[in-house]
Amino acid sequence: MNGAHALINTLVGGGVNVCFANPGTSEMHFVAALDDVPRMRGVLTLFEGVATGAADGYARIAGKPAAVLLHLGPGLANGLANLHNARRARVPMVVVVGDHATYHKKYDAPLESDIDALAGSVSGWLRRSASTSEIAADAAEAIATSQAGHHISTLILPADVSWSDGATTATTAPARAMPTVDVEQSAKVLRSGEATVLLVGGDATRGPGLIAAARIAAATGARWYCETFPTVLQRGAGVPAVERLAYFAEAVAAQLAGAQHLLLAGTKSPVSFFAYPGKPSDLVPEGCEVHVLAEPVGAADALAALADEIAPGVEAPLAAPSRPQLPTGALSAASAADVIGALLPERAIVVDESNTSGLLLAEATGGAPAHDWLTLTGGAIGYGIPAAIGAAVAAPERPVLCLESDGSAMYTISGLWTQARENLDVTTVIYNNGAYDILRLELQRVGAESTPGPKARELLDLTRPTIDFVHLAEGMGVAARRVATAEEFADALQAGFAEPGPHLIEAVVPSLLG
Amino acid sequence: MNGAHALINTLVGGGVNVCFANPGTSEMHFVAALDDVPRMRGVLTLFEGVATGAADGYARIAGKPAAVLLHLGPGLANGLANLHNARRARVPMVVVVGDHATYHKKYDAPLESDIDALAGSVSGWLRRSASTSEIAADAAEAIATSQAGHHISTLILPADVSWSDGATTATTAPARAMPTVDVEQSAKVLRSGEATVLLVGGDATRGPGLIAAARIAAATGARWYCETFPTVLQRGAGVPAVERLAYFAEAVAAQLAGAQHLLLAGTKSPVSFFAYPGKPSDLVPEGCEVHVLAEPVGAADALAALADEIAPGVEAPLAAPSRPQLPTGALSAASAADVIGALLPERAIVVDESNTSGLLLAEATGGAPAHDWLTLTGGAIGYGIPAAIGAAVAAPERPVLCLESDGSAMYTISGLWTQARENLDVTTVIYNNGAYDILRLELQRVGAESTPGPKARELLDLTRPTIDFVHLAEGMGVAARRVATAEEFADALQAGFAEPGPHLIEAVVPSLLG
Repeated sequence: MNGAHALINTLVGGGVNVCFANPGTSEMHFVAALDDVPRMRGVLTLFEGVATGAADGYARIAGKPAAVLLHLGPGLANGLANLHNARRARVPMVVVVGDHATYHKKYDAPLESDIDALAGSVSGWLRRSASTSEIAADAAEAIATSQAGHHISTLILPADVSWSDGATTATTAPARAMPTVDVEQSAKVLRSGEATVLLVGGDATRGPGLIAAARIAAATGARWYCETFPTVLQRGAGVPAVERLAYFAEAVAAQLAGAQHLLLAGTKSPVSFFAYPGKPSDLVPEGCEVHVLAEPVGAADALAALADEIAPGVEAPLAAPSRPQLPTGALSAASAADVIGALLPERAIVVDESNTSGLLLAEATGGAPAHDWLTLTGGAIGYGIPAAIGAAVAAPERPVLCLESDGSAMYTISGLWTQARENLDVTTVIYNNGAYDILRLELQRVGAESTPGPKARELLDLTRPTIDFVHLAEGMGVAARRVATAEEFADALQAGFAEPGPHLIEAVVPSLLG
Repeated sequence: MNGAHALINTLVGGGVNVCFANPGTSEMHFVAALDDVPRMRGVLTLFEGVATGAADGYARIAGKPAAVLLHLGPGLANGLANLHNARRARVPMVVVVGDHATYHKKYDAPLESDIDALAGSVSGWLRRSASTSEIAADAAEAIATSQAGHHISTLILPADVSWSDGATTATTAPARAMPTVDVEQSAKVLRSGEATVLLVGGDATRGPGLIAAARIAAATGARWYCETFPTVLQRGAGVPAVERLAYFAEAVAAQLAGAQHLLLAGTKSPVSFFAYPGKPSDLVPEGCEVHVLAEPVGAADALAALADEIAPGVEAPLAAPSRPQLPTGALSAASAADVIGALLPERAIVVDESNTSGLLLAEATGGAPAHDWLTLTGGAIGYGIPAAIGAAVAAPERPVLCLESDGSAMYTISGLWTQARENLDVTTVIYNNGAYDILRLELQRVGAESTPGPKARELLDLTRPTIDFVHLAEGMGVAARRVATAEEFADALQAGFAEPGPHLIEAVVPSLLG
């Protein structure tokens, strides 16, 4: 068996049975081998950032890695931004980067570049397969470490290692060490009677972790928040409600005001997303002591142990079902949020890259049927459309709602084509406010200019020309319509949820800044 | 003056007066400062790969660097593939990558990543500006080294270095050392009477270098070729005609058959673009001796000196004016080439990413009025639409014809929006053959499968759904039409050349492989 066959067999044997791919010549043996391994599904993307973002979304929902197939250094480069987000999301992923044949590299052919340097910047595990006889063992290790370490494993696959014969399949050994939990210090803090804030993240932002945290908060009176950008936040009716830590430092200061202790369960001590002149980067209030209960992996278990210690018999308060009324009139970010809150289907997966347009979504959807909320963990925009692909592939029976900003959407817009090809049940809402609105806001906040000049304004403006997302979607085979009123938006959203396959709604909303 | 002002002042003082930008929060002071420096033009792109590809195209035509403004590691990552192409094109470029404030980096905020590792893979010069007082000197050095070394200079700009006061402007010192030329060995080879092939590249693919090479060939009977992917090949009526070395190894073998000496003027010894099982990577015929006349920089001068030595008084044969007849009937890659040859305007800039659809273009356009031909130097697809932007910004008075493949176009399709915003005189032809045709060919050539299975075919197919490039272009403000006959193509091309502003023509052509 050649290396490519052994690699794919090892992947499916290890539970990795989806490969998001944008291949080139050096990957042709991998592509050819796909037909001999029925359990592996190949999903073509037209740009590598769509493939890596899809694998991120897939892992967040499936809880296991997908494979990604990329072409040499430039292919990896195109996928890096969404690998950055995936690294911050701590999802498992197996990235296979095809390379020139081992003996060909010394010739410095045009596509030769430093793959290792690029891969090293995002990978928790990285190996260049040296021979066909080792490729299967390498792949098995890539899967196992990726799952155990919740990281990206990157396997660089020279073309001759792929095409040569003499490979055998390897078995992936489960390797998942859970950290031991020491709750004593945290319990002591909570019993001190001093103002304590519990901050949850990592694997504690789904059912069990949230229930444990809610019990602790109920029993002790501690405030609690979710990290600003959780990988998956489970929320809605029947789930403990938790506010996310805010994006802007001023708002975080209000949330943490008066805290004497900050207890971290699966997340880091809060810092400002960006630095601003004269403002602190470290958002822990002065005099507040920081304690670490748990790292991201194992945070839910640690919270459960702490809850058993400190809140025996205490029930977690759960969010009651409650939906906004369907609004009427001109569409705005606020009325759009109410429409979404009113119509969000049960078990929906919401991929949120709505940026400024989505600020009111949390409140409007807090009582909707239980759903999963995926966020932009690494801040590299262009994650939404791709992540929605992966989520839909992972859970074909669940509706996926992708909330996108106009600016962010354009980075990976070709993902719509993959949604059409795979007939994925994704409803994409593009908030078209004609601007990089977050940057307009930031331009003021960094104190650069109180009144920006025309050249600065031009670099943050998306209206000359206005982007027609209906045309873009239709050009890639996705049914689309533009809406400007709440009623039209509600109609379009209901249709998107009701009909199978992908739909796009261009929601024309005013800029926050007028 | 703050760091951003000093940086921009230093850039324009050093002749860098265009900045292709996709900024974020950490670059807001740079953006704000643009309005105070009238000579700097800011051009917004919706994706970083468009900005870097535009700077490549700009440098190829302007002969000097543009600046690129990128946002942190993920922004740089998105621009890397076209930086790879630019590195292979040996063009000067000044890349400014905004970073977190110096004191903010230790907090590992979500967008923190290893910018240095990414930048190192494509940059000939790389510096992280350490303080506001040094930023201007750093920028001046970035410009000077970029021009002297024909490479990418990358300046990492921490936000606080940008926003703090205390900077002064610096002057860029010209630094351009030309190598000394030794023509003796080459002259001896050419006088030996043994079969010699002269291979030109680097800066020898424009007028003076080509004339010198043609004189040498005429005087000695040596065959001569241009490197496979020249940065800019000047060609057409009144210019010496030179065949490019072929892409596929079999064709190169035919071109070089019988050569006893290979004389390199500004390019490397020929190697196969990819490795193939059982086929050689090194394309130098057995027994052929390789001699280096000149490196890429200085190749034209070396050829001129050699011509004066070996071909005194010999005139270079120049291509005669000659155009194909306008063809009729169903459009094909062949008839499309004839239409282009018949209509190409004088002084046109052709940006060629036509891949398999463009194989017949060289012959059809060889007698058209003199023009410049830009090629995909690094093999990272998605360069055409961006490079056309840069070429049009560099030479607003010249028509730019961008020849694109359907697959390649999708990597950086948002560049059409920038063409619309800047009202650039670019006519883009998308060859829509519904496939990654080059990969279909390569799948056969690598010997992977004689009959690919359905999953392999699916990963190379672009017809389910068919991409509607007219919709995509119109969605971004570019006038577009679809053509299926040679007559329609000729009409559309004439209109595109005649009317100002960007136009797109979707040319529906059959796949090479049927």
